Parts: sequence; structure tokens; C-alpha cells
Amino acid sequence: MTPAPAKIAVLGSGSWGTTFAKVLADAADTPVMLWSRRPEVADEITVEHRNSRYLGDTRLPANVSASTDIAAVLAGSDLVVIAVPAQTLRAQLPAWRPLIPGTAVVVSLMKGLEVGTDARMSEVIAEELGLPAERIAVLSGPNLAMEIAREEPTASVVACPDHDTAAWIAAACTASYFRPYTSTDVIGVEIGGIVKNVIALAVGICEGRRMGDNTKASVITRGLAETTRLAVALGGKAETLAGLAGMGDLIATCSSALSRNHTAGHLLGQGLTLEQVTVRMNQTAEGIKSAHAVLDSATKLGVDMPITESVVAVLQGHLSVNDLGPRLLSRNLKPEGDPAP
Amino acid sequence: MTPAPAKIAVLGSGSWGTTFAKVLADAADTPVMLWSRRPEVADEITVEHRNSRYLGDTRLPANVSASTDIAAVLAGSDLVVIAVPAQTLRAQLPAWRPLIPGTAVVVSLMKGLEVGTDARMSEVIAEELGLPAERIAVLSGPNLAMEIAREEPTASVVACPDHDTAAWIAAACTASYFRPYTSTDVIGVEIGGIVKNVIALAVGICEGRRMGDNTKASVITRGLAETTRLAVALGGKAETLAGLAGMGDLIATCSSALSRNHTAGHLLGQGLTLEQVTVRMNQTAEGIKSAHAVLDSATKLGVDMPITESVVAVLQGHLSVNDLGPRLLSRNLKPEGDPAP
Repeated sequence: MTPAPAKIAVLGSGSWGTTFAKVLADAADTPVMLWSRRPEVADEITVEHRNSRYLGDTRLPANVSASTDIAAVLAGSDLVVIAVPAQTLRAQLPAWRPLIPGTAVVVSLMKGLEVGTDARMSEVIAEELGLPAERIAVLSGPNLAMEIAREEPTASVVACPDHDTAAWIAAACTASYFRPYTSTDVIGVEIGGIVKNVIALAVGICEGRRMGDNTKASVITRGLAETTRLAVALGGKAETLAGLAGMGDLIATCSSALSRNHTAGHLLGQGLTLEQVTVRMNQTAEGIKSAHAVLDSATKLGVDMPITESVVAVLQGHLSVNDLGPRLLSRNLKPEGDPAP
Repeated sequence: MTPAPAKIAVLGSGSWGTTFAKVLADAADTPVMLWSRRPEVADEITVEHRNSRYLGDTRLPANVSASTDIAAVLAGSDLVVIAVPAQTLRAQLPAWRPLIPGTAVVVSLMKGLEVGTDARMSEVIAEELGLPAERIAVLSGPNLAMEIAREEPTASVVACPDHDTAAWIAAACTASYFRPYTSTDVIGVEIGGIVKNVIALAVGICEGRRMGDNTKASVITRGLAETTRLAVALGGKAETLAGLAGMGDLIATCSSALSRNHTAGHLLGQGLTLEQVTVRMNQTAEGIKSAHAVLDSATKLGVDMPITESVVAVLQGHLSVNDLGPRLLSRNLKPEGDPAP
């Protein structure tokens, strides 16, 4: 195995990027450098070892620093982790391309399908950076950032077509509270992370309508089934979706009050409009942005995704939140494995 | 299709038996007769249309009645539903055998493996009643009884080797708030319902130790994986466990404060002894009784079930609740699909 990374760059200083920088820094003495757009955030991280906006009082290790200077952050980095908002990724990559060291491996922490192209984040990275698939990896799992920041035990999955590279990244982010497993199924891991945001919206809506745990459990179960159908149609593996990056991430997101998508669904279910939800949350949950792209992908491939379809109908104002839960449970009596009519 | 049942017997007037009697009675005008051991319960059901001990003020339909006279309950019943405590089943069946009408179909609502024989409830029924498999069915799913009693939308799975019989039962229990799906995989449906009680103990213990949603989601995900391994080794189908009777039931149980097994685990996690938990809950949760039988089955078949093994070790006093969560997440870095070392 190649030696551990000499320097690690984490591009994006939001909640997950900052938390994962802490994991990497706790895993080894390697210098971990965060890139932030905002000077005040970079200063707070470097000087005070905190990112108070996202992680409150969580103390960052001494080997984490930050800068607004992307060239300084990328210089000498053999592991480059990207955690920027999914829909902004493509526009930023051309400027980064010449600054990324020639042998660096790039890891995406992002969960979203690009609106307009339906591309996964690893595909956007491959296209814009011109990297071979063997140098692009993704990391996903039941990974609520605040819990990891509090060092609660967490498992995750790092996927790369090259297994040795996945194992190299996994070794670099193994901390006492963070256990990464390896996979070669990039498609399955990414689709799990993307579609769970859409299913979490559906579950949140059901909760907002005060439906119980029986209904929620059914929506989560059928949600994973349709996620798996899409992943397999795209070339992913069903077993990946049955694992931590599929089922695990979906359950964590749908259980937690910390999930933005879950919360957004809850507010929609309580009767707020999409505009009111966005104002209230001070941002648009990624599932709201990706839902239509997911449905678009499914339609092109002939994959049946009734829950995603219903969520899109709610977001477009064509279906009332009152009708979503009953619609999801009201199919005719039939063998369970059959697709919806 | 044969005509709807003429009369339905439900043996057992606990929370689930009574709730399912309500579902059957709401589904059609068929007379539904509950058998209760206690005269005061039978009287309350027949006269006041309530079972206040288990279902509070829930009103039972007019076509539900109850009796302590098993012969009267079984007479003329072409559908016989059994919902007695799992470990008491075998001892009761010989007395019922001569009273069950010659063409009746028997449905088990019970979730447990018989201690000592490791037999599933449908196997105990087949042995003691001498019925062919085609006349024995099971029903299981994300079915918290109190939510169904409140008529919250719920889906379930009814399994019988004879698909027409499964469909006949499904039609007989389809109410506006209750949607049964059909399956021919009796083993998969039963194992899902049994092992989820053991996994719910593990999740409850993690919660009692104040571990977060990341850990819980990982334990649930790996719990379903080991449940699936056991079901497949016994002749069940993996897809059944990915459905409502596997994943759905497991998630509902592990999400809900209404689950006895989940609650028992929570109390164990908080540091109560097994005896203290039993006293506090006024009963022994079924998962506590079945856990050893599940592990015994797995050992005989060479199936790896690390979570069940850890739960049994906690119940036997060989593993501290402090060590359960870390032990479940502390395996070496490896591809996700590999079994534990």
C-alpha cells in the first residue's frame, strides 16, 4: 500500500466538510486544510479551531487549518475532498483543475444529482477535471454530521472502482469514532445518498400529517426498494443499497431531527408552502433540488418510482400533502414484489 | 376464488389479537369471535365493545364478540387466527385440534421461536394440528397494534405456500386503513418478525447508552443483514426480508416507543438488570425469550449473527451494555459485504 496522504485538502467548510476535516485530522497527524469562501470562517477555523456557525463549540484538532486561497489549499495535497453544494460544483471545477496535483485522488462527499444533466457528482468531477474513474471516490453512509462532530460511533462507506484506492482513503479517515468500509460500487453509493433525501421528504410529509410509525416504516421500506431499482438500472449493485450507504443512510436521515430534508418534509406536511419552507430553513434542502432530476433519470430508464413521483407532484403543487400518504399505501392487493400499477 | 369466510375465530385477546379482530370486522360483515382466557375481558368485549386493558377506549365493531368457550368460538369458523404468547402455543393446540373445522385455514400472528425446539410458530401449528402447509398462513409487517387500533394507514404481508389462500385471507382483512400484500414465503415472513425483536433489543440498548442515530441506523442495517442470512439459510427469500415483513417491521419496531422489545432494550441500556426490566414491564419481552433460540438456529446452520450473539451475551451477563455498541462497530476495515471475523 502507498504511504498515507502527505497533505489533505477539504474544499467546502459547511457542516459536513468541516466535520470530515476533523475526522481526517483525528485519524492521523496529516495536515488538513479547509477551503472556505468566507474569510471570517477561515480565520475562525485557523485561529480559534472552531466553525461556530455549523458546529457550535466543537473543537477542531490542531492539524486543521483553513484558507480562502484555493491554490494554497490544494498545493501539495494528494487527497482532495470536495463538499460544496451539489448544484454549484460544476461551475467551480474549471478554476480548480490546474491547481489539483497530478496524482491526487478526489473524494466527493456531495449528495445530489445535477439539475439539467441528471449527472452524479462523481461524473461531474470526471468530466470537468478530466480524471480517470480510478482516481475519483465517494463517501456516504449514516453520517449525521453533528453526531460525528460529537464523536459518536459512526460507520460509513468509501467507494472507488479501484479497491486499493478505496482502502487507502478508508485508512486515512479511520478515527476512534469513525469506521469506513470499502466498496467498488460508486454508482450504488451515490444513488443511495441522493435518493434518500427525496424519500426523507416523503417521510417528513407523512410525519407532518401526523401519520404513525407503521406508515413511516412502509414508506422507508418502499423508498429503499425504488432507490434500489434506480441504482441497479444505472449499473449499481442491489447489495450496496441494502448496506450502510443505502438503508443505513436512509434510516439515519428519516429518524433524525438533524436532517434538513426530513425537516423540510415535515414543514411541508404541516401545510407550509415550498416558499415558506425555504424561508424558514434559510436554504433549500438538497432533496427538493434533486427530486425532479431523480424522477427524470428514472423515467428515461423506465424505472417505477412512485414515492419520488408523488414527492415531485407535491413540490410542483399537483398533489396535496393530505393525499400523499394514502396514495402511497393504496395500491391494489397483490404480491409484494410486483411493481406499482 | 372461494367465498369470503362465514365466521372468523381469533384465539387470544391481547393487544394484537383484539386489534386484528377489529381489522377483520371492519373489513366485512363477517362475525368475528375472540377467545379470551379471562371472563371479564370476554364480557367487556361482547357487552361494551372494548378491551380497555390493551386498547383503551378503542371501540370494537358490532360484529366482534368474545367468549371463554373455545368450542363456541371455533364452531363454524373457516378462518382461525391465533395470537397467543408464542411460548404457550404448543401446549394449547392439542385441546383445540378436534374443535377446528375440517376445512379451516389457520393464520398465525405470533412472533417467536419456540425455546427448546427452535421451531417457528407455523411449524408448531403444523405439527400439533396435523394440517398441510397449504392451510397454514402467517401475517406480519410494520404493524404496531395501537396505531392500527387508531386506524392509522398500515400495510402488512400475509404469506401462505398456496397463493390463492394468501389472497383469500388478504381480502378478508382489507380495511380502509389496513392493506395486506401477499407472499408465498412463510419462512421469510416469520423469521423477519422473530429476529426483529432481538435487533430491537440491541437498538434499545444503544439508545439507553445515549448513542445517536448514526449508530442506531448502522445496527438496524446490519441487523437486517444477519436476519436475511438466517432466513435464506432456512429456505426463505432475501427479497421478503427487504420488504414490509422484514425491513418494514424492523424499522417500525426500532422507531417506536410502543414496542415492548425496544423498550426492554432501552431499560437494559440504562443499566437495569434483566430481572428489574421484567418487573418494570410486568412481562418478559418476546425478543428476550427468542434470542437464544435464534442464536441456536444460526449456530446449527453456520450463519454469522454478531448482533444476536452480542444481545445473548448481554442477556446472559457475559457482555456489558457499555461494550455492545462499540463491539458492533469495531470490526476491521474491509469490504462491506464480508462477514465478521
